[in-house]
Amino acid sequence: MMHVISLLEPIRSDLEQVMRLLHTTLAGLETPLGSDLRGMVGNGKCLRPALVLLVGQLFCAPAAPFHKLAAAVEVLHTAALIHDDLVDGAMLRRGRKTLHTSWPTGVTVLVGDALLAQTAALMAGLGHPQILRVFAEALCVMSTGEIGQLLTAGENHHSREAYYRRIEAKTASLCAAAMEMAAILAEAEAAQIAALRRFGWELGIAFQIADDVLDFVGDEARLGKPAGSDLRLGLVTLPVICHMEQAGGDAAVEVVLAGQRDEARVQAAIEAIRTSGAVEAALDEARFHARQARESLAVLPDGASRQVLLALADYAVERRR
Amino acid sequence: MMHVISLLEPIRSDLEQVMRLLHTTLAGLETPLGSDLRGMVGNGKCLRPALVLLVGQLFCAPAAPFHKLAAAVEVLHTAALIHDDLVDGAMLRRGRKTLHTSWPTGVTVLVGDALLAQTAALMAGLGHPQILRVFAEALCVMSTGEIGQLLTAGENHHSREAYYRRIEAKTASLCAAAMEMAAILAEAEAAQIAALRRFGWELGIAFQIADDVLDFVGDEARLGKPAGSDLRLGLVTLPVICHMEQAGGDAAVEVVLAGQRDEARVQAAIEAIRTSGAVEAALDEARFHARQARESLAVLPDGASRQVLLALADYAVERRR
Repeated sequence: MMHVISLLEPIRSDLEQVMRLLHTTLAGLETPLGSDLRGMVGNGKCLRPALVLLVGQLFCAPAAPFHKLAAAVEVLHTAALIHDDLVDGAMLRRGRKTLHTSWPTGVTVLVGDALLAQTAALMAGLGHPQILRVFAEALCVMSTGEIGQLLTAGENHHSREAYYRRIEAKTASLCAAAMEMAAILAEAEAAQIAALRRFGWELGIAFQIADDVLDFVGDEARLGKPAGSDLRLGLVTLPVICHMEQAGGDAAVEVVLAGQRDEARVQAAIEAIRTSGAVEAALDEARFHARQARESLAVLPDGASRQVLLALADYAVERRR
Repeated sequence: MMHVISLLEPIRSDLEQVMRLLHTTLAGLETPLGSDLRGMVGNGKCLRPALVLLVGQLFCAPAAPFHKLAAAVEVLHTAALIHDDLVDGAMLRRGRKTLHTSWPTGVTVLVGDALLAQTAALMAGLGHPQILRVFAEALCVMSTGEIGQLLTAGENHHSREAYYRRIEAKTASLCAAAMEMAAILAEAEAAQIAALRRFGWELGIAFQIADDVLDFVGDEARLGKPAGSDLRLGLVTLPVICHMEQAGGDAAVEVVLAGQRDEARVQAAIEAIRTSGAVEAALDEARFHARQARESLAVLPDGASRQVLLALADYAVERRR
């Protein structure tokens, strides 16, 4: 039985159907590569597929096409993680070794491509040109956003503006697209589609900021990766930015960002950030976006699904893993 | 003015419009990365965009959507080349340094992804679900085909069967999809769509075999890469397979395939293959597929475009570069 956060219990059986669809989709890939992939997919919080399913239920739409769209969105998310982990050099993800640490670079690149292809196939199966356009647009934003970040590395990418651009491309764009595609599939009105897209965008930002905070204050066993893993990769996230702003600079952090990443220096930098007001300041920004997300749902019909979406906005910020 | 093989002179102005569309598509990518990419795109023979345009003209269809589809197919081809060159470790392509030799792996991976995203966006813009399905299916075959090859490296991938599987995934599938998508866009009848797809498939095989022969016998300056470049990367192509079959094995070649790739050994292996009957044997297989391609056009209306397609099937095999 799959692990599901308690908030999503009402849609557990749908999520399980999405997982079965995902495993069928991946069945074509040879083992043991296929089994590594099946281990990755759906091993997270299933946030994105849940968003799709909840929109379907909000409009009392027939479930089957939403299962397909939810699976497509999760496959796309997995493809993005595989390439991003390779690009960033991340070693662990959700307590498992990342794919590129077990397989050659070539295999990792092509597996990401194969998953993008599967996404396109699932999306095309919906037979809805407008959904395809939203999907393609999200894919463009996701891939070019990260290129921009790599090309400006060392320049201004320690700024708050650069951070927001990055998490918008990495997380908000896909959550927004998932909501928008689901709303189109549910034949929602234009204003509702826009509101649901807005919810996904703001939720994505809140969720990613909370993720970046948890990277400093979370429980390592629960996170499945060591504390400060972003800092170890040289990635500057909001808690770092808030800390540097509040403290007017901090030599302990700057030395790590400059590339001196021995364990003692990294631990000192993590400790400096963790014990500062930066954690609360960053969470306050996340709460602001969660509030924006909730407010955007005002134009939608009330009911159980809307209540779950509202609760997800809170959960995005206040969760412990 | 762009370079166009003489056969394609009748569609030069359309090809130039496709190139302009391509350059607009790539304008979003920052220079100097963008200018490296603009140098790559359309620097080849424009075979795939030409196939799309010729199908449009065969059915006297309005040109604009075919320009878009032709651009999408060329962007997809470029994305595949970028990732394949990275995976294979190829250094040169059409006389230029491959992207991954000038840019970090991460940038190379993401640029390929961004081009796949642009392809999806151009395809989605056509608003034709059936075309999207063909595109997604080709993408699946292209990416999973090469994974299979990597995973079985050193096993049976020196066999003729493995070679054909590889070139079908790498070249035939996209040429077939380009023809099929164009035929759908032209609102051709089912039997015509199938015939055009078949033409693309067989042409792709013939073209790729000829490419693999030219890698041994072609002029280095014209090819823009050193002779035997596949062999240097450990890739076994049809001339090698034919030679080994005819000679019942050859120690000079086997030692290179086993990994001893110093210049003297590589030159000896190239010379052994080049001077054997393997070159003609491989070209005969290419001619067989070119003939199959031509025959599949029998059900189509005659005219200038059909004549160019027929001539392309001959050109695919008999060209010198």
